[in-house]
Amino acid sequence: MTHFQQIGVIVKREDERLKQTLTSLLSYLDTHNIEYLLDETVAQAGYRRKDTVSRKTIATSCDLAMIVGGDGTLLSAARSLVDADIPLLGINIGRLGFLVDVSPEELPDQLSLIFSGEFYEEKRAMLYGEVHREETLIATSTALNDIVLHARDSVRMIEFETHINGRLVHLQRADGIVVSTSTGSTAYALSGGGPILHPDLNAIVLVPICPHTLSNRPIVVTDNSEITIRLSPHSTAHAQIAFDGQANVDFEDEDTLQIRKLSNDLRLIHPKGYDYYHILRNKLHWHAQP
Amino acid sequence: MTHFQQIGVIVKREDERLKQTLTSLLSYLDTHNIEYLLDETVAQAGYRRKDTVSRKTIATSCDLAMIVGGDGTLLSAARSLVDADIPLLGINIGRLGFLVDVSPEELPDQLSLIFSGEFYEEKRAMLYGEVHREETLIATSTALNDIVLHARDSVRMIEFETHINGRLVHLQRADGIVVSTSTGSTAYALSGGGPILHPDLNAIVLVPICPHTLSNRPIVVTDNSEITIRLSPHSTAHAQIAFDGQANVDFEDEDTLQIRKLSNDLRLIHPKGYDYYHILRNKLHWHAQP
Amino acid sequence: MTHFQQIGVIVKREDERLKQTLTSLLSYLDTHNIEYLLDETVAQAGYRRKDTVSRKTIATSCDLAMIVGGDGTLLSAARSLVDADIPLLGINIGRLGFLVDVSPEELPDQLSLIFSGEFYEEKRAMLYGEVHREETLIATSTALNDIVLHARDSVRMIEFETHINGRLVHLQRADGIVVSTSTGSTAYALSGGGPILHPDLNAIVLVPICPHTLSNRPIVVTDNSEITIRLSPHSTAHAQIAFDGQANVDFEDEDTLQIRKLSNDLRLIHPKGYDYYHILRNKLHWHAQP
Amino acid sequence: MTHFQQIGVIVKREDERLKQTLTSLLSYLDTHNIEYLLDETVAQAGYRRKDTVSRKTIATSCDLAMIVGGDGTLLSAARSLVDADIPLLGINIGRLGFLVDVSPEELPDQLSLIFSGEFYEEKRAMLYGEVHREETLIATSTALNDIVLHARDSVRMIEFETHINGRLVHLQRADGIVVSTSTGSTAYALSGGGPILHPDLNAIVLVPICPHTLSNRPIVVTDNSEITIRLSPHSTAHAQIAFDGQANVDFEDEDTLQIRKLSNDLRLIHPKGYDYYHILRNKLHWHAQP
Repeated sequence: MTHFQQIGVIVKREDERLKQTLTSLLSYLDTHNIEYLLDETVAQAGYRRKDTVSRKTIATSCDLAMIVGGDGTLLSAARSLVDADIPLLGINIGRLGFLVDVSPEELPDQLSLIFSGEFYEEKRAMLYGEVHREETLIATSTALNDIVLHARDSVRMIEFETHINGRLVHLQRADGIVVSTSTGSTAYALSGGGPILHPDLNAIVLVPICPHTLSNRPIVVTDNSEITIRLSPHSTAHAQIAFDGQANVDFEDEDTLQIRKLSNDLRLIHPKGYDYYHILRNKLHWHAQP
Repeated sequence: MTHFQQIGVIVKREDERLKQTLTSLLSYLDTHNIEYLLDETVAQAGYRRKDTVSRKTIATSCDLAMIVGGDGTLLSAARSLVDADIPLLGINIGRLGFLVDVSPEELPDQLSLIFSGEFYEEKRAMLYGEVHREETLIATSTALNDIVLHARDSVRMIEFETHINGRLVHLQRADGIVVSTSTGSTAYALSGGGPILHPDLNAIVLVPICPHTLSNRPIVVTDNSEITIRLSPHSTAHAQIAFDGQANVDFEDEDTLQIRKLSNDLRLIHPKGYDYYHILRNKLHWHAQP
Repeated sequence: MTHFQQIGVIVKREDERLKQTLTSLLSYLDTHNIEYLLDETVAQAGYRRKDTVSRKTIATSCDLAMIVGGDGTLLSAARSLVDADIPLLGINIGRLGFLVDVSPEELPDQLSLIFSGEFYEEKRAMLYGEVHREETLIATSTALNDIVLHARDSVRMIEFETHINGRLVHLQRADGIVVSTSTGSTAYALSGGGPILHPDLNAIVLVPICPHTLSNRPIVVTDNSEITIRLSPHSTAHAQIAFDGQANVDFEDEDTLQIRKLSNDLRLIHPKGYDYYHILRNKLHWHAQP
Repeated sequence: MTHFQQIGVIVKREDERLKQTLTSLLSYLDTHNIEYLLDETVAQAGYRRKDTVSRKTIATSCDLAMIVGGDGTLLSAARSLVDADIPLLGINIGRLGFLVDVSPEELPDQLSLIFSGEFYEEKRAMLYGEVHREETLIATSTALNDIVLHARDSVRMIEFETHINGRLVHLQRADGIVVSTSTGSTAYALSGGGPILHPDLNAIVLVPICPHTLSNRPIVVTDNSEITIRLSPHSTAHAQIAFDGQANVDFEDEDTLQIRKLSNDLRLIHPKGYDYYHILRNKLHWHAQP
């Protein structure tokens, strides 16, 4: 009778504000006889539940995942669930996020609507990155927000060259570069001076961090672009790569970072009436009287 | 035998560097028995030719228009020829442009290639804007680069609200706002802090000029967006609208500016081997050793 | 017995929120038998008082001017009173300003402290600008915030060259340039990308507005610098100069704008415990949890 | 007879372009019978000279130090010699620097002028930083350009609070913060979006690197300010401090970084006719036709 048969519940670890929202969510699910599986993160968050299951089980057994926490919690869940092709719903624990946009106080009402099929589902592109060392593929990962190349260990610029679809874009000296999806454009890329990309835009933005050449600017390209980044032989500083700020890979002199759109999109669910600009105004304090 | 049957030649008015390039071009066309029509701008530029024709004749009788001058010359030609659906080739007069990318010194070689069919043709989206006053449509125009709403007469901010597809984006106090195509992203929008949009990206970027709220940032949206801008009742300053910086329309308190993608794309021809990033590096001085 | 003998009261014209604060202020002054003169602006604001006096009378007869309104009200008062060497106190009408920092709700308490000598007085540097046309001085004015050179009538860049102490700084193409005091650094200059200058810093900042050359940046110089700006002969757009955004002077091709620090500083009074950074955090919404 | 009795010669290590300029310099000094001491860096650069002396000997025995290399070479020399109160002259090895402004081709002419007393000497303020851990002073260092607090090891923002003269400026989440002199304002601080401070300006600028709160902006304060920075208890990322990008100190949760102007200024010598704006235009490519 409900729109979804089995819900996976994934939570943020270590946050005191979690308890109330999670209790409220589980109570709703119990009351309405909606089946759910608790992810391991629930136990990690301190709840003594013996019935938690692995992320893999969530991926294979659920047809909707509810993420309770902050945008970072959803980023992490997205990377583990994108292949499972199940939609995600983000529930915040008191502070509105770009991705966790259901707030605790509106939880019961929103859940009722969502379970009766009243919701808005959108696709969000993700990135896939490969790090090659000589002939070997040494690391791969995905990102819903961004893949960042950054100096490591010291406060010193790195020098790197960027190619898009085999064409040289530039040789750049900078703290690093952010390669971001539309979703990630309101995260770190924004702090680096990048533009806001509407989620419907099929695009990737490259934002240099503190570039030495002052005329270097963010560049937005189509999301079918293949981006390749290598350190310049002149670069003396060490570098590292971060995927959604969560996984870090060391990046050496001869390594190559290749980035393209992930073939699967993430499915993201919002309450009906979802208004991206409303969230934008709220998060960026544009509601402040100009 | 050649790829194009009749060429329209359009030039920049008032520029001393024009003569040499134009002479060289016409000499090439004469030598190779390529038919051409001279646009009125040739006479306006000071050449005593009695055989110039109207822009309308160029539009209906030619299958290629060659624009000799700067990017501004091509912008103006684009607006007059986009409906004719003929391709444009931009020839600069000594200084590389983003749009006029054939340089005088390479002119004969490039023309030979182009007339033998060796060229790259791309489509560039343009904008269409309407200004409504109460129930009346008081002005319409097109732009290859940008449509700009700006304070007029005084150094004072205007206050306006922007809607995209019927949704409020924000109420903003600023010097103005640039609504730009990918093509225009390297023009005025870039000076205003906007990102570079690759020409293949089907997008429109909104760049606030000196916004009062410091967290206002450029926003990139899909190019099928309908953008509506109105002055706020609190706005005390006068405003005006410019299309590609060339046509100015006064904008009053109750007026509405509506912008959408023009249904026709502009056809732009480049020499084979055209490399957007090469031009970008050249124009933005990225070739300078970082 | 009180610290000041006669108060001049100057107000903002046309603001409905004025009434309550003004009533409260006059009531305090009456109750405490403090003599005061009402500026003409009180009548202009709609109060039928026959006893208003000219600004000149305020300047010569008062030893403290209270400005009730917004920062713009105080800017205007500052320009008319700086020569009189009397201190100014800014009282806002509901919205904290950088300059009008006494709020209505704390008015009686603050006034008691101020009249008993418990206040903080600081000096704020002002600018003095002269416009020369050939041999003639065609306009002079002063500014507490900024002197702005800007394009007029059209959305087009102007080209101008800037000298400091006789040395060429640059030839620049831009919408304009803001020459700002430390006080003005949080006003228009900030929207143009300028830095915040602490009021104690004896400095002038030059902020280009939308410069064509992307590596042009704000420059901060000592406040004993003599700044000279001329339009370049290539500049086709018209220009104008604004002093504190309030007085506009047309600026022609051969004109020269000379700016230096005004010899008199403005005396500004704040409640004891005045905290510049507190106001900064409040006005720029830094109190928002990062 | 010459203006200086004994010259200390300090060079950049590991640069192939060094040889020619150094040979030319020593040849000049030999020819003109000017006494000089070779710093250890000369041996480190690969010259088999047995007569090199320690930096300490340079400091105590010379009345002028000539620095041959890049701006980084001079930064390092400045930190070691500022206490000795001897002037520094910067000689570049082919690429103009902000600090090493004598170019190889003009070397003999400039040296003749300088030894006959025709030069311009200016004072440049430096910074002094102390890192305290609980009650212990764990590190101190100086900087001619900047002291930078930055995230370490991971691509993650740090959270810190900044006080100036005991007053809270803000609690900030960012990649880091640059505290820079006027001299350093054209170095890393500029890449971070800071303003250019003229060297005559007695000021310190604080430039946040990629701040999370978009309205955070560079702040310029008087150079007698005492700046204190502490990590916020919420900061989960590790941090480090760099002095002129050359000395790195780990910065832990309870540590305090205190920065103030160094009591000694650096004495810097330039050829007569030194023009700061000329160097600025050259280095920032403002000479490019706008």
